[in-house]
Amino acid sequence: MKLGMIGLGKMGFNLAQNLLRNGHEVVVQDVNPEPGKLLASEGGIFAETIADAVSKLQAPRIVWVMVPAGKIVDQVLDALAPLLGEGDIVIDGGNSHYKDSIARGERLGERGIFFFDAGTSGGTEGAALGGCFMIGGDREAFATIEPLFQAMAVDKGYLYAGKNGSGHFLKMIHNGIEYGMMQAIAEGFELLSKSDFDYDYEDVARVWSNGSVIRGWLMELAENAFSKDPKLEGIRGVMQSSGEGKWTVETALDLEASTPVIALSLLMRYRSLEADTFHGKVVAALRNEFGGHAVVPSE
Amino acid sequence: MKLGMIGLGKMGFNLAQNLLRNGHEVVVQDVNPEPGKLLASEGGIFAETIADAVSKLQAPRIVWVMVPAGKIVDQVLDALAPLLGEGDIVIDGGNSHYKDSIARGERLGERGIFFFDAGTSGGTEGAALGGCFMIGGDREAFATIEPLFQAMAVDKGYLYAGKNGSGHFLKMIHNGIEYGMMQAIAEGFELLSKSDFDYDYEDVARVWSNGSVIRGWLMELAENAFSKDPKLEGIRGVMQSSGEGKWTVETALDLEASTPVIALSLLMRYRSLEADTFHGKVVAALRNEFGGHAVVPSE
Repeated sequence: MKLGMIGLGKMGFNLAQNLLRNGHEVVVQDVNPEPGKLLASEGGIFAETIADAVSKLQAPRIVWVMVPAGKIVDQVLDALAPLLGEGDIVIDGGNSHYKDSIARGERLGERGIFFFDAGTSGGTEGAALGGCFMIGGDREAFATIEPLFQAMAVDKGYLYAGKNGSGHFLKMIHNGIEYGMMQAIAEGFELLSKSDFDYDYEDVARVWSNGSVIRGWLMELAENAFSKDPKLEGIRGVMQSSGEGKWTVETALDLEASTPVIALSLLMRYRSLEADTFHGKVVAALRNEFGGHAVVPSE
Repeated sequence: MKLGMIGLGKMGFNLAQNLLRNGHEVVVQDVNPEPGKLLASEGGIFAETIADAVSKLQAPRIVWVMVPAGKIVDQVLDALAPLLGEGDIVIDGGNSHYKDSIARGERLGERGIFFFDAGTSGGTEGAALGGCFMIGGDREAFATIEPLFQAMAVDKGYLYAGKNGSGHFLKMIHNGIEYGMMQAIAEGFELLSKSDFDYDYEDVARVWSNGSVIRGWLMELAENAFSKDPKLEGIRGVMQSSGEGKWTVETALDLEASTPVIALSLLMRYRSLEADTFHGKVVAALRNEFGGHAVVPSE
């Protein structure tokens, strides 16, 4: 089938290649023309602008939007909406907040446009070779776009999850789980690094990846990482986050749901961003106040 | 090759079957004669007692001990030690504490007996069909028993980890990671259960098992569990533990290692064992004291 791909960053570019390889026609557009030109050389249909992209599609038009979460999504949707009509379909494959997706579904729905929120997992490798998709939106209209997910996903790797918002909600929770799993794995290696034993962490990650209870993709990625830098001496333990973990914890607070490990995993990331902490100074100062315990002066 | 298997519970029985299927000769012994007789009907060599089992082996004798951690391991080793001699090999495949394994290695080493601590992962399915093994002990003597692990493990599923204790230490940390990963996964489903969306948890676990970042065996087990009981209505959220998580946290305290998520996962298990808590009563009482906030009276 034919669709437009708006946004050709790492994820959009790989998804477009994936779709082209699977025999779909893809109209490709990005504010930066370079990736679109590259895709055109691989069979994609280059479009200069969003309007140009829409003009190259036939009703019911299908447009996949793959741009950074937030205002840019609304800008693209605002550009798209007047160009589309009843029965056309817009898919937001990015990491949007599920509440935004619910609002966007309502807004586009007023014009008869079907909106889908598609959470995408599996990294850039998944986007290129087969990923995992969680999709919210109109159940009947989903049948129209299902072949796209059959093409892009690994076997059993997509799920129609329910009404608008349910796809991005599921992706958000997925990322929250990911924070907890990564912190647990990392703390295990922390213990190995402080033990009296002399482990090769790549070997450990490999044996844990084969036949153990904790085997999985994250452990395989740990094996890859240790194969390149056996003790990770080349990097610092600064743990950035891109927002979905925070959204998960905010959602837990909204729902008054007990999720201490996911919350703590997020807080440990924040801790890692600071070389020193003010709470550390306060505890040290209090110990000094009541017990005369030594403090470490500022450098 | 030929070896003795002492202890034919779920794990020992499955490992013995696994070895028999792979063409090894296994002398089988347990305080309960039934599993040994069953294994004898499948080609195992039945032994009435530990002494009987040892008498059926030839030097260098190899004995795999698969009994519950703690005093029973020492009882079996005390029975075995006088019957074995220089160059014989004893493998403890159970979940012993690594400090016990270091002490046992020293004790048996005084008699010239090689002792190995082999952490075993992969559950009963792994024991039967191919598991994951982390082995500590003498590096040269390991070459003698390596064919056993090649037979019992999945591909790349065993690791000679170093000196005595390193195998059981690695298995202990593996279990600590498991606690954190399980709690993170479980908290994700907790959030789904409290959301406004109507998810089929089996479907969710299936899509997360295929192509996602958080795919792995634990997620596949979640899919199995939800396939049998879609909302887990048949069970209570009581989270038992069998000791290795506690050892991991004790080790973290000994090493002064920062492992908050693994520690909290263990504490959440303890929380789940109580229908009510004394700390809950104390917080409720204090709120009532300072602010007159209502308390929930005992039933």
